[in-house]
Amino acid sequence: MKRIAILGSTGSIGTQALEVVREHADKFSVELLVAQNSWELLVKQAIEFSPNSVVIGNRDHYQKVSDALSGYDIKVFTGKESIEESVVSSEIDMVLSAMVGFAGLKPTLKAIEVGKAIALANKETLVVAGELVTEAAIKNKVPIIPVDSEHSAIFQCIVGEHSPIEKVILTASGGPFRNHSMEQLRSVSKADALNHPNWCMGQKITVDSASLMNKGLEVIEAKWLFGLQPEQIEVVIHPQSIVHSMVQFVDGSIKAQMGLPDMKLPIQYAFTFPNRVNSNFPRMDFSLQHTLTFEKPDTERFPSLSLAIESLKKGGNMPCVLNAANEVAVEAFLNEQIGFMAIPKIVEKLLSTISYIERPTLNDYLQTDSETRIKSYELIKHHQLIWK
Amino acid sequence: MKRIAILGSTGSIGTQALEVVREHADKFSVELLVAQNSWELLVKQAIEFSPNSVVIGNRDHYQKVSDALSGYDIKVFTGKESIEESVVSSEIDMVLSAMVGFAGLKPTLKAIEVGKAIALANKETLVVAGELVTEAAIKNKVPIIPVDSEHSAIFQCIVGEHSPIEKVILTASGGPFRNHSMEQLRSVSKADALNHPNWCMGQKITVDSASLMNKGLEVIEAKWLFGLQPEQIEVVIHPQSIVHSMVQFVDGSIKAQMGLPDMKLPIQYAFTFPNRVNSNFPRMDFSLQHTLTFEKPDTERFPSLSLAIESLKKGGNMPCVLNAANEVAVEAFLNEQIGFMAIPKIVEKLLSTISYIERPTLNDYLQTDSETRIKSYELIKHHQLIWK
Repeated sequence: MKRIAILGSTGSIGTQALEVVREHADKFSVELLVAQNSWELLVKQAIEFSPNSVVIGNRDHYQKVSDALSGYDIKVFTGKESIEESVVSSEIDMVLSAMVGFAGLKPTLKAIEVGKAIALANKETLVVAGELVTEAAIKNKVPIIPVDSEHSAIFQCIVGEHSPIEKVILTASGGPFRNHSMEQLRSVSKADALNHPNWCMGQKITVDSASLMNKGLEVIEAKWLFGLQPEQIEVVIHPQSIVHSMVQFVDGSIKAQMGLPDMKLPIQYAFTFPNRVNSNFPRMDFSLQHTLTFEKPDTERFPSLSLAIESLKKGGNMPCVLNAANEVAVEAFLNEQIGFMAIPKIVEKLLSTISYIERPTLNDYLQTDSETRIKSYELIKHHQLIWK
Repeated sequence: MKRIAILGSTGSIGTQALEVVREHADKFSVELLVAQNSWELLVKQAIEFSPNSVVIGNRDHYQKVSDALSGYDIKVFTGKESIEESVVSSEIDMVLSAMVGFAGLKPTLKAIEVGKAIALANKETLVVAGELVTEAAIKNKVPIIPVDSEHSAIFQCIVGEHSPIEKVILTASGGPFRNHSMEQLRSVSKADALNHPNWCMGQKITVDSASLMNKGLEVIEAKWLFGLQPEQIEVVIHPQSIVHSMVQFVDGSIKAQMGLPDMKLPIQYAFTFPNRVNSNFPRMDFSLQHTLTFEKPDTERFPSLSLAIESLKKGGNMPCVLNAANEVAVEAFLNEQIGFMAIPKIVEKLLSTISYIERPTLNDYLQTDSETRIKSYELIKHHQLIWK
């Protein structure tokens, strides 16, 4: 029985992870559930899965959760510090890090420090502080098993391989705007951006998929997960999302991991690695006349991808700047304050505004993150009318 | 330094294997070269690679080879028995079994019995006597590393996996006649059949690719190599030959091995397994607008595939009958004695003519093989005019 903590249990990854636990109740138990705001769903999950503890991040909801769970043997906590205190419990074998954005970094680092295996869905953890996190994981002999479908694909492809990777090929669906002209891209709406052709995900990541920033963040994530140089990471557009990613080895052989798009598979794989267990996920049927296509991404129409790769090449605190500016810009886009093509403009502006720090400490990252957010908000406020 | 014996050094696989050795002279040496008829090329290869011994199968060429190599420190032998005697040399680490057809079985079995690692390109070894060969390999703790691109792909995909295979998906290019009507298939010429769209191979296997018998033989081979039931082996047509084959695991995850069609890659992989070494083989470039298609094979137009799967389901000596009848029929087709669609008719006829043996000994196999050949020749002789 593997005892799992789910950080971000009410989000897209969290709820799918609980489906996996429900289907394999003989193999997994839930020890800790953490949610930021969705207190009602958290309560419902807690009643079904009987964790040892739950944490509701937002203090405003603490009393409601506490009251709702008063008849159950479940401890209820609130606040950021409680998340960090709860993940260290000796009852936990694996931590699924699936909180949205930068907030996932500190609890994930804490879990690594106390030797918990990590199933990593929170890509910001590696994007912002990849060096810190991977160093901590090596030092504490902690496996980081990626849950992103692309990185899970790469992870599955390198299992049992003893030779260097020549390059990885990250596939990208291209999102809902793959064939949009620059003109069309300038006027897309929030609803357009949230209408992803293949994947059902949270709002932030869906917008990032539409701008290709998500793929840019994944390039950075891949660098840290697999110890690669930026030049070893290629992005190709693959609209069908069947090939989840590929690895090319030094002999030229390419291995790919494929399947119908379903996040439950990489989640379950992270829970069961190095084994696999049966699943009832729908199967791919190649006899049904399938066509898979691949093409080069257009970084003119989707500049976020280039910005991410540039920030990775610069290194230091630049990916942290990229991530924070993008989070603020996407939020503004979702609030219909700015247009879609303003997102990369804000990110580009911030990358040239914030001071470069070559070897940031955790504190430097926190400061860079907060400075970038403040300056991004200011930028949006002042230019709001232009970008509407 | 891995010391390699190449059985069938003058054929398509053999010559490409020697290219691999030439490119990695620091890693591999050739200890034994075996050829059946091409004595001039054998001599040339011997002079370049300085093996300890060479065997020319056909006794008629012995004197010529012996004379040509008289000034070199290379032992020269002839005849079938010499092949079996030579592979047991303690100087040999790995035997590449790349002789054409049934003749590869006995020397391969001999090499397994004395504990040599096997790189297996001779599929008839497993098609005819899969049970005997795999049992011998297990008993002698000998790895059998497939060299066929499809089986190498599967082998590469299961490296490091600890969980059962749900199914394997063997890809087939569909050959030059993929879109031919039944009427067109009846009148194709030898030259048409030898014009394979993707792979450059020997004549026998090229005809087998055109009839899909090659894929049928590979289904049988896959059963023995990977311990599968016939129902776990699916064939899909994939005309681009980029995906060399796939494995679906119990969780629904599919792994594929891909690359430009080049037999040197699986040959080199077999030589270097479990490692990989650098290569200068041309690389696949997914950014160049690639389209990969998949469809169901048509067993009405290509009955050889169904015949092979049927023979596998019946088991016993039936795959041996299938293989022998097909070898004779393909030879007759290459001699322009029979038409293309007569090949599966001859195989079907023989499968219903030869007596079924449930658990054949090696001797039973030899007898089944020779009886099937004699009866196939008779059939062709008597029906020659009809099938021309």
